[in-house]
Amino acid sequence: MLVIGLDVGATKVAAGLGRADGTILERRVIATRRLDPDRLLDDLGELVADLHRSGPDAPVNIGIGICGLVEPETGRVARSIALGWSEPFALRDALTRRTGCRVLVDNDVNAGALGEQRWGAGVGVDDFVYLSVGTGIGAGIVLGGRLQGGASGAAGEVGHMVIDLRGRPCRCGNRGCLEALASGQAVGEIVTAELASGVAASSSLATIAASGRAITARDVFSAAAAGEPYACDVVRRTGEYLAVAVVNLVNLLDPRRVVVGGGLTHTGHLLVDAIREALGRWTACGGDAAKIVLPAALGEDTGLRGAMAVALQGTPGAA
Amino acid sequence: MLVIGLDVGATKVAAGLGRADGTILERRVIATRRLDPDRLLDDLGELVADLHRSGPDAPVNIGIGICGLVEPETGRVARSIALGWSEPFALRDALTRRTGCRVLVDNDVNAGALGEQRWGAGVGVDDFVYLSVGTGIGAGIVLGGRLQGGASGAAGEVGHMVIDLRGRPCRCGNRGCLEALASGQAVGEIVTAELASGVAASSSLATIAASGRAITARDVFSAAAAGEPYACDVVRRTGEYLAVAVVNLVNLLDPRRVVVGGGLTHTGHLLVDAIREALGRWTACGGDAAKIVLPAALGEDTGLRGAMAVALQGTPGAA
Repeated sequence: MLVIGLDVGATKVAAGLGRADGTILERRVIATRRLDPDRLLDDLGELVADLHRSGPDAPVNIGIGICGLVEPETGRVARSIALGWSEPFALRDALTRRTGCRVLVDNDVNAGALGEQRWGAGVGVDDFVYLSVGTGIGAGIVLGGRLQGGASGAAGEVGHMVIDLRGRPCRCGNRGCLEALASGQAVGEIVTAELASGVAASSSLATIAASGRAITARDVFSAAAAGEPYACDVVRRTGEYLAVAVVNLVNLLDPRRVVVGGGLTHTGHLLVDAIREALGRWTACGGDAAKIVLPAALGEDTGLRGAMAVALQGTPGAA
Repeated sequence: MLVIGLDVGATKVAAGLGRADGTILERRVIATRRLDPDRLLDDLGELVADLHRSGPDAPVNIGIGICGLVEPETGRVARSIALGWSEPFALRDALTRRTGCRVLVDNDVNAGALGEQRWGAGVGVDDFVYLSVGTGIGAGIVLGGRLQGGASGAAGEVGHMVIDLRGRPCRCGNRGCLEALASGQAVGEIVTAELASGVAASSSLATIAASGRAITARDVFSAAAAGEPYACDVVRRTGEYLAVAVVNLVNLLDPRRVVVGGGLTHTGHLLVDAIREALGRWTACGGDAAKIVLPAALGEDTGLRGAMAVALQGTPGAA
């Protein structure tokens, strides 16, 4: 059985043709043309046609993971802040009409959770949380073997879990949200502000900042990997915030595993190690929370294979 | 169909014989004799025998809601801090042997959620959280129509959700847990400490404190109901903390309702009103969170009818 996965992010669309065992046979990547659902639809249609030319004779099922609020039952994107969509868009129906394929749509982080459940760190685990730490922070919650969407498909917004109610303001309007403290964007902003105040003036990050380029979380994690003390301290603090979120998830949901993926984990195990280390200083009702935290197994392919897993929903797992 | 519910708390055991429609026909209440599972078992056996004498000829199903960590599949109480049990106790099997009845066991807050689902504010709602605010704070999480126990039955420990990571120490070892800020016990401790530092010296609460009696949350809510400004401010702050917890639950789980019950809600709507009022100052991804907060419908009978609902699990709802 062949499927097509479409991982639609704010900066790029990754498309792949793959098998039900998770093998990716063909890949395509294009830049996302934002702000216009119809142009995105054109791009997706062309990607699907292109992938069909390199393999299957008959239309194959398509799974989409997209950075937005999705109603999985209808395949409608209710809104996407990342893509600048404030109006609902009937993505499933539009792409079905265009391609003749069966199309399933879910949120990109939920898709990642389905990918990890089928081929990654969630195989054989009925209760786990997939925690995606990238530019933003989200979660896919699997309980009793089922991805939990909540009443309107919006479940999993762990990025807006308040853990420090007198803490840093978040763009959502609240204070001390996890995403305002430990996301890639927050790490970049916090480091930029600290360097501007004169901290770590001799670090490589200060040199980047002095050059006028914006500091990214990737810069920080690279500097930490090279052993720079200031960058290591930022990673440690980021791990501490995420550890508190893990404690909250464990106490609230009692998962068997918390699988950590997303952009900030793609350059190595620094972040997962920092979370585990910090968990040694917090208690959780379920016992030793550090033991249940592990890195996502699909790495940089989580998005694409997640989208393939969306296409395979309702079919038996490969494990 | 008749069932027996046993609501086992740290201070009392409430027992009831009732019908599947939730009507309670007979009630008994005894003091809990702590620290000894075998003595509790004797008491429960006598209560069951007593209730059988007042009605049914044949053994009826028994549901137990107990303040402890329960493995619902086995009916074992893994531990109960409130009862002082640190060793597992096979409550279901022991009471089955003693009574000849079919026995089902769950955590008391989960039982409350099942009661609200069957006869209260959760009727017809697939996704809701029952938030119990009493001496401690816990939650029963219903998603997709099912009570979610998590991997080991420990889900719902919202009392140890950290919302203020530099906040008041909690007895669990962490800081800023909801239970350390907004539980009945916390309210009593916070008010006691504030009065000792000279706050609200002319309030009725200061008079109670001066008499040497420990201040309880009930005192504070009574004073607030009488309009005393200091007590009203304490209720307002308690509502603010709980509102943050509601925001976190809404963002994480996307429930259609958050049903607030427990001891602090038994004296009126002050607490629910304070939560709703505070929610006006916080945003949630799902929109207006204040609209989905409502008081538990079963009030002081939540525990007993919850235990009856445990007994009725797997049978059709009365709604």
